[in-house]
Amino acid sequence: MGFYIGLVHYPVYNKHGETIASAVTTLDLHDLARLARTYEVDRCFVVTPLEDQQRLAERVKAHWTDGYGALYNPNRKEALELLTICGTLKEAKDTITLQEGRSPLVLATDASPEGVKTLGYQEARGMLERAGGVFLLFGTAWGLEARSMAEADFVLEPVRGRGEYNHLSVRAAAAIILDRLLGRDG
Amino acid sequence: MGFYIGLVHYPVYNKHGETIASAVTTLDLHDLARLARTYEVDRCFVVTPLEDQQRLAERVKAHWTDGYGALYNPNRKEALELLTICGTLKEAKDTITLQEGRSPLVLATDASPEGVKTLGYQEARGMLERAGGVFLLFGTAWGLEARSMAEADFVLEPVRGRGEYNHLSVRAAAAIILDRLLGRDG
Repeated sequence: MGFYIGLVHYPVYNKHGETIASAVTTLDLHDLARLARTYEVDRCFVVTPLEDQQRLAERVKAHWTDGYGALYNPNRKEALELLTICGTLKEAKDTITLQEGRSPLVLATDASPEGVKTLGYQEARGMLERAGGVFLLFGTAWGLEARSMAEADFVLEPVRGRGEYNHLSVRAAAAIILDRLLGRDG
Repeated sequence: MGFYIGLVHYPVYNKHGETIASAVTTLDLHDLARLARTYEVDRCFVVTPLEDQQRLAERVKAHWTDGYGALYNPNRKEALELLTICGTLKEAKDTITLQEGRSPLVLATDASPEGVKTLGYQEARGMLERAGGVFLLFGTAWGLEARSMAEADFVLEPVRGRGEYNHLSVRAAAAIILDRLLGRDG
Protein backbone atom coordinates (compact mmCIF):
# COMPACT_ATOMS: atom_id res chain seq x y z
CA MET A 1 0.00 0.00 0.00
CA GLY A 2 1.33 3.42 -0.98
CA PHE A 3 0.91 5.98 1.78
CA TYR A 4 1.17 9.68 0.98
CA ILE A 5 0.66 12.81 3.03
CA GLY A 6 -0.11 16.36 2.02
CA LEU A 7 0.75 19.50 3.95
CA VAL A 8 -1.78 21.89 2.51
CA HIS A 9 -1.28 25.67 2.42
CA TYR A 10 -4.17 26.35 0.05
CA PRO A 11 -7.12 26.33 0.30
CA VAL A 12 -7.14 26.79 4.09
CA TYR A 13 -8.91 29.12 6.49
CA ASN A 14 -7.51 32.01 8.45
CA LYS A 15 -8.63 32.94 11.96
CA HIS A 16 -11.72 34.69 10.53
CA GLY A 17 -12.87 31.77 8.39
CA GLU A 18 -11.69 33.38 5.14
CA THR A 19 -9.98 31.25 2.50
CA ILE A 20 -6.28 32.01 2.21
CA ALA A 21 -2.96 30.59 1.05
CA SER A 22 -0.87 30.32 4.21
CA ALA A 23 2.87 30.92 4.38
CA VAL A 24 5.21 27.96 4.50
CA THR A 25 6.69 27.35 7.96
CA THR A 26 10.13 25.87 7.38
CA LEU A 27 10.03 23.95 10.64
CA ASP A 28 6.86 22.20 9.45
CA LEU A 29 8.77 20.93 6.41
CA HIS A 30 11.39 19.38 8.69
CA ASP A 31 8.93 17.91 11.15
CA LEU A 32 6.62 16.47 8.50
CA ALA A 33 9.54 15.04 6.53
CA ARG A 34 11.01 13.41 9.64
CA LEU A 35 7.60 11.96 10.49
CA ALA A 36 7.21 10.73 6.93
CA ARG A 37 10.58 8.98 7.13
CA THR A 38 9.81 7.50 10.55
CA TYR A 39 6.47 6.04 9.46
CA GLU A 40 7.78 5.04 6.02
CA VAL A 41 5.42 7.32 4.18
CA ASP A 42 6.15 7.22 0.45
CA ARG A 43 6.00 10.94 -0.15
CA CYS A 44 5.01 14.18 1.55
CA PHE A 45 3.49 16.76 -0.78
CA VAL A 46 3.89 20.38 0.21
CA VAL A 47 0.98 22.09 -1.51
CA THR A 48 1.11 25.82 -2.20
CA PRO A 49 0.19 27.81 -5.31
CA LEU A 50 2.41 30.75 -4.25
CA GLU A 51 5.57 30.69 -6.28
CA ASP A 52 7.75 32.45 -3.71
CA GLN A 53 6.62 29.93 -1.11
CA GLN A 54 7.36 27.07 -3.48
CA ARG A 55 10.85 28.50 -3.97
CA LEU A 56 11.33 28.79 -0.20
CA ALA A 57 10.31 25.17 0.29
CA GLU A 58 12.56 24.04 -2.59
CA ARG A 59 15.47 25.96 -1.07
CA VAL A 60 15.02 24.32 2.33
CA LYS A 61 14.80 20.91 0.69
CA ALA A 62 17.88 21.51 -1.48
CA HIS A 63 19.97 22.73 1.46
CA TRP A 64 19.42 19.47 3.30
CA THR A 65 19.46 17.09 0.36
CA ASP A 66 22.21 18.55 -1.86
CA GLY A 67 23.75 21.38 0.12
CA TYR A 68 25.81 21.62 3.28
CA GLY A 69 23.00 20.17 5.37
CA ALA A 70 23.30 16.81 3.61
CA LEU A 71 26.84 16.45 4.94
CA TYR A 72 26.09 17.98 8.32
CA ASN A 73 23.13 15.72 9.01
CA PRO A 74 22.55 12.72 6.70
CA ASN A 75 19.49 11.67 8.72
CA ARG A 76 17.84 14.91 7.76
CA LYS A 77 18.70 14.31 4.11
CA GLU A 78 16.87 10.97 4.19
CA ALA A 79 13.82 12.77 5.51
CA LEU A 80 13.78 15.93 3.40
CA GLU A 81 14.18 13.85 0.24
CA LEU A 82 10.61 12.71 0.78
CA LEU A 83 9.23 16.20 0.13
CA THR A 84 7.66 17.11 -3.20
CA ILE A 85 6.56 20.71 -3.61
CA CYS A 86 3.55 21.23 -5.86
CA GLY A 87 0.98 23.85 -6.75
CA THR A 88 -2.35 22.16 -6.17
CA LEU A 89 -3.93 19.24 -4.39
CA LYS A 90 -5.08 17.92 -7.75
CA GLU A 91 -1.48 17.84 -9.01
CA ALA A 92 -0.45 15.83 -5.94
CA LYS A 93 -3.36 13.44 -6.33
CA ASP A 94 -2.62 12.93 -10.03
CA THR A 95 1.00 12.09 -9.21
CA ILE A 96 -0.17 9.47 -6.73
CA THR A 97 -2.69 8.01 -9.17
CA LEU A 98 0.05 7.70 -11.77
CA GLN A 99 2.36 6.05 -9.25
CA GLU A 100 -0.21 3.62 -7.86
CA GLY A 101 -2.14 2.90 -11.02
CA ARG A 102 -5.38 4.00 -9.33
CA SER A 103 -6.84 6.85 -7.31
CA PRO A 104 -5.85 6.90 -3.67
CA LEU A 105 -8.29 6.87 -0.79
CA VAL A 106 -8.26 10.52 0.35
CA LEU A 107 -8.46 11.10 4.10
CA ALA A 108 -8.75 14.64 5.41
CA THR A 109 -8.01 15.73 8.97
CA ASP A 110 -9.70 18.57 10.81
CA ALA A 111 -9.83 19.82 14.36
CA SER A 112 -13.57 20.47 14.21
CA PRO A 113 -15.35 18.98 11.20
CA GLU A 114 -18.97 20.04 10.99
CA GLY A 115 -21.73 18.08 9.35
CA VAL A 116 -19.34 15.49 7.95
CA LYS A 117 -19.21 11.79 8.58
CA THR A 118 -15.96 11.26 10.44
CA LEU A 119 -13.94 8.08 10.59
CA GLY A 120 -12.47 6.71 13.84
CA TYR A 121 -8.84 5.59 13.96
CA GLN A 122 -9.62 1.93 14.48
CA GLU A 123 -11.99 1.96 11.49
CA ALA A 124 -9.36 3.81 9.48
CA ARG A 125 -6.65 1.26 10.32
CA GLY A 126 -8.92 -1.51 9.07
CA MET A 127 -9.54 0.44 5.89
CA LEU A 128 -5.82 1.01 5.28
CA GLU A 129 -5.22 -2.71 5.05
CA ARG A 130 -7.63 -2.93 2.14
CA ALA A 131 -6.79 0.38 0.44
CA GLY A 132 -4.58 0.52 -2.63
CA GLY A 133 -3.09 3.89 -1.86
CA VAL A 134 -3.87 6.49 0.78
CA PHE A 135 -3.48 10.26 0.64
CA LEU A 136 -3.75 11.87 4.08
CA LEU A 137 -4.26 15.65 4.16
CA PHE A 138 -3.20 18.08 6.86
CA GLY A 139 -4.30 21.69 6.67
CA THR A 140 -2.10 24.52 7.92
CA ALA A 141 -3.38 27.80 9.46
CA TRP A 142 -6.97 27.31 10.71
CA GLY A 143 -7.47 24.12 8.72
CA LEU A 144 -8.55 22.76 5.36
CA GLU A 145 -11.30 24.57 3.51
CA ALA A 146 -14.68 22.85 3.25
CA ARG A 147 -14.12 22.37 -0.49
CA SER A 148 -11.10 20.09 0.04
CA MET A 149 -12.90 18.43 2.88
CA ALA A 150 -15.80 17.62 0.56
CA GLU A 151 -13.44 16.11 -2.01
CA ALA A 152 -11.96 13.74 0.56
CA ASP A 153 -13.43 10.25 0.89
CA PHE A 154 -13.47 10.54 4.67
CA VAL A 155 -12.52 12.95 7.41
CA LEU A 156 -10.67 11.50 10.39
CA GLU A 157 -11.99 12.20 13.86
CA PRO A 158 -10.35 15.19 15.52
CA VAL A 159 -7.54 14.30 17.90
CA ARG A 160 -8.83 14.45 21.45
CA GLY A 161 -6.58 14.27 24.44
CA ARG A 162 -8.16 13.98 27.84
CA GLY A 163 -10.60 16.88 27.51
CA GLU A 164 -12.34 19.00 24.92
CA TYR A 165 -9.41 21.28 24.05
CA ASN A 166 -8.09 20.54 20.58
CA HIS A 167 -5.87 23.31 19.37
CA LEU A 168 -2.72 21.43 18.45
CA SER A 169 -0.12 22.56 15.97
CA VAL A 170 -0.28 20.81 12.60
CA ARG A 171 3.12 19.27 13.49
CA ALA A 172 1.81 17.71 16.69
CA ALA A 173 -1.49 16.62 15.16
CA ALA A 174 0.33 14.99 12.23
CA ALA A 175 2.62 13.14 14.64
CA ILE A 176 -0.29 11.76 16.65
CA ILE A 177 -2.40 10.84 13.63
CA LEU A 178 0.44 9.04 11.83
CA ASP A 179 1.25 7.13 15.01
CA ARG A 180 -2.40 6.16 15.47
CA LEU A 181 -2.69 4.96 11.87
CA LEU A 182 0.72 3.43 11.28
CA GLY A 183 2.57 3.16 14.61
CA ARG A 184 3.29 0.08 16.59
CA ASP A 185 2.46 0.91 20.18
CA GLY A 186 4.77 -1.16 22.41
CA MET B 1 -2.79 11.55 39.59
CA GLY B 2 -0.68 14.62 38.91
CA PHE B 3 1.02 14.50 35.52
CA TYR B 4 3.92 16.84 34.77
CA ILE B 5 6.25 17.20 31.84
CA GLY B 6 9.68 18.73 31.55
CA LEU B 7 11.24 20.22 28.44
CA VAL B 8 14.90 19.96 29.34
CA HIS B 9 17.58 22.27 27.88
CA TYR B 10 20.29 21.21 30.33
CA PRO B 11 21.96 18.80 30.70
CA VAL B 12 21.57 17.58 27.12
CA TYR B 13 23.95 16.43 24.40
CA ASN B 14 25.00 18.20 21.26
CA LYS B 15 25.72 16.45 17.96
CA HIS B 16 29.18 15.45 19.21
CA GLY B 17 28.00 13.92 22.49
CA GLU B 18 29.20 16.87 24.57
CA THR B 19 27.05 18.15 27.42
CA ILE B 20 25.51 21.54 26.66
CA ALA B 21 22.69 23.88 27.59
CA SER B 22 20.61 24.18 24.42
CA ALA B 23 18.85 27.34 23.29
CA VAL B 24 15.12 27.68 23.83
CA THR B 25 13.08 27.22 20.63
CA THR B 26 10.02 29.40 21.04
CA LEU B 27 7.91 27.14 18.84
CA ASP B 28 8.66 24.26 21.21
CA LEU B 29 7.14 26.27 24.05
CA HIS B 30 3.94 26.69 22.07
CA ASP B 31 3.75 23.11 20.89
CA LEU B 32 4.51 21.59 24.30
CA ALA B 33 2.07 23.93 26.04
CA ARG B 34 -0.70 23.09 23.55
CA LEU B 35 0.01 19.39 24.01
CA ALA B 36 -0.02 19.83 27.80
CA ARG B 37 -3.41 21.53 27.60
CA THR B 38 -4.80 18.89 25.22
CA TYR B 39 -3.76 15.98 27.43
CA GLU B 40 -4.63 17.82 30.67
CA VAL B 41 -1.07 17.80 31.94
CA ASP B 42 -0.84 19.73 35.21
CA ARG B 43 2.28 21.68 34.36
CA CYS B 44 5.05 21.84 31.79
CA PHE B 45 8.44 22.82 33.22
CA VAL B 46 10.84 24.54 30.86
CA VAL B 47 14.23 23.75 32.34
CA THR B 48 17.21 25.96 31.51
CA PRO B 49 19.94 27.40 33.74
CA LEU B 50 20.72 30.18 31.22
CA GLU B 51 19.20 33.40 32.47
CA ASP B 52 18.78 34.99 29.04
CA GLN B 53 16.95 31.87 27.86
CA GLN B 54 14.75 31.95 30.95
CA ARG B 55 13.92 35.57 30.16
CA LEU B 56 13.11 34.66 26.55
CA ALA B 57 10.77 31.90 27.68
CA GLU B 58 9.14 34.18 30.27
CA ARG B 59 8.63 36.84 27.59
CA VAL B 60 6.93 34.39 25.22
CA LYS B 61 4.72 33.17 28.02
CA ALA B 62 3.81 36.70 29.17
CA HIS B 63 2.94 37.82 25.64
CA TRP B 64 0.36 35.07 25.33
CA THR B 65 -0.96 35.06 28.88
CA ASP B 66 -0.99 38.77 29.78
CA GLY B 67 -0.07 40.63 26.61
CA TYR B 68 -1.73 41.17 23.25
CA GLY B 69 -1.61 37.44 22.49
CA ALA B 70 -4.07 36.69 25.28
CA LEU B 71 -6.72 38.77 23.51
CA TYR B 72 -5.74 37.65 20.04
CA ASN B 73 -5.91 33.97 20.85
CA PRO B 74 -7.46 32.93 24.18
CA ASN B 75 -6.88 29.23 23.37
CA ARG B 76 -3.18 29.90 23.32
CA LYS B 77 -3.42 31.68 26.70
CA GLU B 78 -4.98 28.56 28.26
CA ALA B 79 -2.03 26.55 26.98
CA LEU B 80 0.88 28.88 27.71
CA GLU B 81 -0.35 29.37 31.27
CA LEU B 82 0.75 25.80 31.94
CA LEU B 83 4.43 26.69 31.46
CA THR B 84 6.73 27.17 34.44
CA ILE B 85 10.28 28.23 33.66
CA CYS B 86 12.91 26.99 36.09
CA GLY B 87 16.66 26.61 36.41
CA THR B 88 17.18 22.94 37.18
CA LEU B 89 15.47 19.59 36.99
CA LYS B 90 15.78 19.32 40.77
CA GLU B 91 13.86 22.57 41.20
CA ALA B 92 11.06 21.22 39.00
CA LYS B 93 10.97 17.91 40.85
CA ASP B 94 10.88 19.65 44.24
CA THR B 95 7.93 21.76 43.08
CA ILE B 96 6.06 18.61 42.07
CA THR B 97 6.90 16.84 45.34
CA LEU B 98 5.57 19.83 47.27
CA GLN B 99 2.42 19.86 45.16
CA GLU B 100 1.74 16.12 45.33
CA GLY B 101 2.96 15.45 48.88
CA ARG B 102 5.39 12.82 47.55
CA SER B 103 8.08 12.32 44.94
CA PRO B 104 6.81 11.73 41.44
CA LEU B 105 7.66 8.72 39.33
CA VAL B 106 10.25 10.11 36.90
CA LEU B 107 10.08 8.81 33.32
CA ALA B 108 12.75 9.83 30.85
CA THR B 109 12.47 9.61 27.08
CA ASP B 110 15.30 8.98 24.67
CA ALA B 111 15.65 8.13 21.01
CA SER B 112 18.39 5.57 21.63
CA PRO B 113 18.87 4.59 25.27
CA GLU B 114 21.88 2.35 25.79
CA GLY B 115 22.31 -0.14 28.57
CA VAL B 116 19.14 1.00 30.32
CA LYS B 117 16.05 -0.98 31.13
CA THR B 118 13.34 0.60 29.02
CA LEU B 119 9.65 0.59 29.70
CA GLY B 120 7.06 -0.17 27.00
CA TYR B 121 4.02 2.06 26.59
CA GLN B 122 1.51 -0.54 27.67
CA GLU B 123 3.52 -1.25 30.84
CA ALA B 124 3.85 2.49 31.43
CA ARG B 125 0.09 3.04 31.10
CA GLY B 126 -0.51 0.38 33.73
CA MET B 127 2.02 2.05 35.99
CA LEU B 128 0.40 5.46 35.58
CA GLU B 129 -2.83 4.20 37.07
CA ARG B 130 -1.00 3.29 40.28
CA ALA B 131 1.44 6.23 40.41
CA GLY B 132 0.87 9.19 42.69
CA GLY B 133 2.47 11.72 40.40
CA VAL B 134 4.43 11.39 37.18
CA PHE B 135 7.19 13.61 35.79
CA LEU B 136 7.90 12.88 32.13
CA LEU B 137 11.14 14.32 30.71
CA PHE B 138 11.87 15.33 27.14
CA GLY B 139 15.39 16.32 26.15
CA THR B 140 16.06 18.96 23.50
CA ALA B 141 19.07 18.98 21.12
CA TRP B 142 20.57 15.45 20.89
CA GLY B 143 18.76 14.26 24.01
CA LEU B 144 19.00 14.02 27.78
CA GLU B 145 22.42 13.45 29.30
CA ALA B 146 23.11 10.05 30.86
CA ARG B 147 23.14 11.68 34.31
CA SER B 148 19.46 12.72 34.09
CA MET B 149 18.67 9.41 32.50
CA ALA B 150 20.21 7.63 35.49
CA GLU B 151 18.15 9.70 37.92
CA ALA B 152 14.92 8.70 36.22
CA ASP B 153 12.99 5.72 37.53
CA PHE B 154 12.48 4.40 34.01
CA VAL B 155 13.26 5.27 30.44
CA LEU B 156 10.44 4.89 27.92
CA GLU B 157 11.06 2.88 24.79
CA PRO B 158 12.10 5.00 21.82
CA VAL B 159 9.27 5.87 19.46
CA ARG B 160 9.43 3.58 16.46
CA GLY B 161 7.38 4.14 13.39
CA ARG B 162 7.40 1.44 10.75
CA GLY B 163 11.17 1.09 10.44
CA GLU B 164 14.37 1.77 12.31
CA TYR B 165 14.61 5.51 11.63
CA ASN B 166 13.92 7.50 14.78
CA HIS B 167 15.04 11.06 14.38
CA LEU B 168 11.91 12.95 15.28
CA SER B 169 11.75 16.50 16.58
CA VAL B 170 11.15 16.79 20.32
CA ARG B 171 7.78 18.34 19.43
CA ALA B 172 6.67 15.33 17.38
CA ALA B 173 8.08 12.80 19.85
CA ALA B 174 6.31 14.52 22.75
CA ALA B 175 3.04 14.50 20.81
CA ILE B 176 3.27 10.77 20.11
CA ILE B 177 4.39 9.81 23.61
CA LEU B 178 1.68 11.84 25.35
CA ASP B 179 -0.93 10.32 23.05
CA ARG B 180 0.37 6.80 23.73
CA LEU B 181 0.32 7.38 27.50
CA LEU B 182 -2.78 9.52 27.94
CA GLY B 183 -4.74 9.56 24.68
CA ARG B 184 -7.96 7.86 23.91
CA ASP B 185 -7.56 6.27 20.53
CA GLY B 186 -11.02 6.18 18.89
